[in-house]
Amino acid sequence: MTGQARTTLHASSKAAVLDVIRAAGTISRVGLINATGFTGATISTVVRRLIDEGLVLETGRAESTGGKRRVLLQLDHASRYAIGVHLDHAGITYVLTNLGGAVVARITRPGAGAEEPPEVVARMAAEVHALVDRVGVDRERVLGVGLVSPGPQSATTGMTHTPPSMRQWEDFPLDRALAEAVGLPVLLDNDATAAALGEHWSGGIGGTATSAALYMGTGIGAGLVIGGITYRGTSGNAGEIGHICVDALGPECWCGARGCVEAMAGPAAVVATARADQVLARMVGLTGAKRSRPSVAADFAAVSRAARRGEPQALAILDRSARYIAVAARTLANLMDLDVLVLTGPSFAIAGSIYLPVVKEELDRAFFARATHEVDVRLSRSAATAPAIGAAAMVLQSELVPLHEGMRLPENLAAAEPAFITPPSA
Amino acid sequence: MTGQARTTLHASSKAAVLDVIRAAGTISRVGLINATGFTGATISTVVRRLIDEGLVLETGRAESTGGKRRVLLQLDHASRYAIGVHLDHAGITYVLTNLGGAVVARITRPGAGAEEPPEVVARMAAEVHALVDRVGVDRERVLGVGLVSPGPQSATTGMTHTPPSMRQWEDFPLDRALAEAVGLPVLLDNDATAAALGEHWSGGIGGTATSAALYMGTGIGAGLVIGGITYRGTSGNAGEIGHICVDALGPECWCGARGCVEAMAGPAAVVATARADQVLARMVGLTGAKRSRPSVAADFAAVSRAARRGEPQALAILDRSARYIAVAARTLANLMDLDVLVLTGPSFAIAGSIYLPVVKEELDRAFFARATHEVDVRLSRSAATAPAIGAAAMVLQSELVPLHEGMRLPENLAAAEPAFITPPSA
Repeated sequence: MTGQARTTLHASSKAAVLDVIRAAGTISRVGLINATGFTGATISTVVRRLIDEGLVLETGRAESTGGKRRVLLQLDHASRYAIGVHLDHAGITYVLTNLGGAVVARITRPGAGAEEPPEVVARMAAEVHALVDRVGVDRERVLGVGLVSPGPQSATTGMTHTPPSMRQWEDFPLDRALAEAVGLPVLLDNDATAAALGEHWSGGIGGTATSAALYMGTGIGAGLVIGGITYRGTSGNAGEIGHICVDALGPECWCGARGCVEAMAGPAAVVATARADQVLARMVGLTGAKRSRPSVAADFAAVSRAARRGEPQALAILDRSARYIAVAARTLANLMDLDVLVLTGPSFAIAGSIYLPVVKEELDRAFFARATHEVDVRLSRSAATAPAIGAAAMVLQSELVPLHEGMRLPENLAAAEPAFITPPSA
Repeated sequence: MTGQARTTLHASSKAAVLDVIRAAGTISRVGLINATGFTGATISTVVRRLIDEGLVLETGRAESTGGKRRVLLQLDHASRYAIGVHLDHAGITYVLTNLGGAVVARITRPGAGAEEPPEVVARMAAEVHALVDRVGVDRERVLGVGLVSPGPQSATTGMTHTPPSMRQWEDFPLDRALAEAVGLPVLLDNDATAAALGEHWSGGIGGTATSAALYMGTGIGAGLVIGGITYRGTSGNAGEIGHICVDALGPECWCGARGCVEAMAGPAAVVATARADQVLARMVGLTGAKRSRPSVAADFAAVSRAARRGEPQALAILDRSARYIAVAARTLANLMDLDVLVLTGPSFAIAGSIYLPVVKEELDRAFFARATHEVDVRLSRSAATAPAIGAAAMVLQSELVPLHEGMRLPENLAAAEPAFITPPSA
């Protein structure tokens, strides 16, 4: 048993207050009491500390509502910055955000592909430095690097269940290597969790919502955000929606179970079905000599483009995939009683217009608590950058929890907490 | 969007501290800081308030570990009491617990059956008074009644998705009626959520665990507890594991979806399959003139007893049910990244020995994060009383959150918060 849940729930009064200020833009102390449920004394203490640390500014007074005009608070956006890196097989996305999570700069570079991990790390370090230099931000104000990638990762266990496309990264100490190369603390997490936080910070999701990001890249995952705080579960592996069973007697998945939605309907399954149709495969370019660096992501994109052109065979394959994914989305919504579900990640960036109506229809028709409230299903407006934005947001949030204040964590908490790895020279 | 998640997460510093003290037995303030992640100042404030309110006692000092000997804290168990009532078709269970959640008295009476709701409420009020009188507890110290029953219920919406066996309760204002009849505040919730909290309080689950109770009565539900706090979702409907799809092309369920595990493998499905086998049906007494008040629960119990006697046909039916339920349990474990899963509720009380090994085997074999940690799957030691114990625990916890301190909740929180309904005369 680990203490992740406890830490996530209770070590975060500063993070919660910051999140409410960020979401509100400007807010009074009384507004914070109402929004968080904290006592006046707690809000007063937390706000004083945020002001002392230069994170929050007092900025004039609200219109009078009869009594004393209330002092308004807002973030000092330029007081801190964070870097978010989304490492994927097909591309690496870098963002630099300010304390409010707004993207100040963004670059995209070729993915990890078949490159060896040490080469990729050296390249990432150079690209991070180039990004910071280009904007001219004081390096002292950059808190660290959030690094997210597919699959379950942790500093203590390595990538024990590495997805097929990232096998050469198994057991590679990614966070330590990057921290050493870039000279900044590095926080490692998975891309679906980061995407959920990125959508929360950039997508206008209210601070109190229970939201999930359904992430489709090469695989399928989900990130969960409860009231602004990411929910990670016991070992950081919550949200494995790709391994929801949609057919108890279905084919075996690489995870060891049967009938997982990823195996039945994920991008690799879509590509395999398309490839089995020789006419379609030729038409969309899944075969032939001209293919350089074929990947599931590229082939899925090709099938999706054909479907969007109205190609009936391609459309039928994606429609079947969407129906299974909609069932998995409903299972997630029923278990978590969701407010908001955002479809995000590179595969939804391409094929989201086909999946969105099917998922919406399924939840409107059969979400268990539909008589009480609907689930707001959205297509992300920043599907390609949400994981990197979320990675940066994790760094900003972690600045505000005890980990960073030097408070000793009980030993049994250490494994599940996304740990900051500090470079040896820092 | 409602603020349930926010409230659950952040309005509960007192509840969290109380929960840690309760789970620890005795603990110092430094121990509380380590266990909760709160700052020393917060712990100091919260503990002072708990002592002022008579909930917590200082009780001697710990062994010296070199420095000053630390003052130990413990609950004053006799300072408060709560009543938990589990209303079900087949039985009504009442418990009186002290502040530590220990059961001081317990009675079980006939279930709601086909009785009219007002008659059942009058009977419940009389039985609650009899329970309190029998023990001789000062009524002033009884905080209120936690009332739990199947299906999603809320004070504002009524039982909008009433399970088939409780149809006559649809739209009946159960909490208001009981509060008026019994003269105590009443807190209404669903039985699976209460069972999860009951297992947490009485089943030796650590304070920091992410645990779920898989509840099987007439239907199937799950309750989720994250670090001692029940997770309810946006509208109080989290944990609807009975409506996980295990076959996307399966038969239609009463909820409107297809292939739900409850429809494929729940007690009603087990009974229907057994009834279709005429030899088995006769053998276990599912047919015949002597049946009085037949119910799914009673018939499921009859099939389970036959299976436990080694009757191959009955065993095969339950084994098939267990395999589907194990798949749903794995889905829940994968999404929540669970530490602990407890099988509880009346149907597991009877057939748990058949289901437990199948669920264990499925999670050992195919739980997604199995390389990092296993899920501790247990059969409840108090399957029949866990919902009532949890109902009482909800009352004890609610005593400690702002709702009860008269703090105004923002209006949009009101719907999702399990509201205390106070009798008109109180």
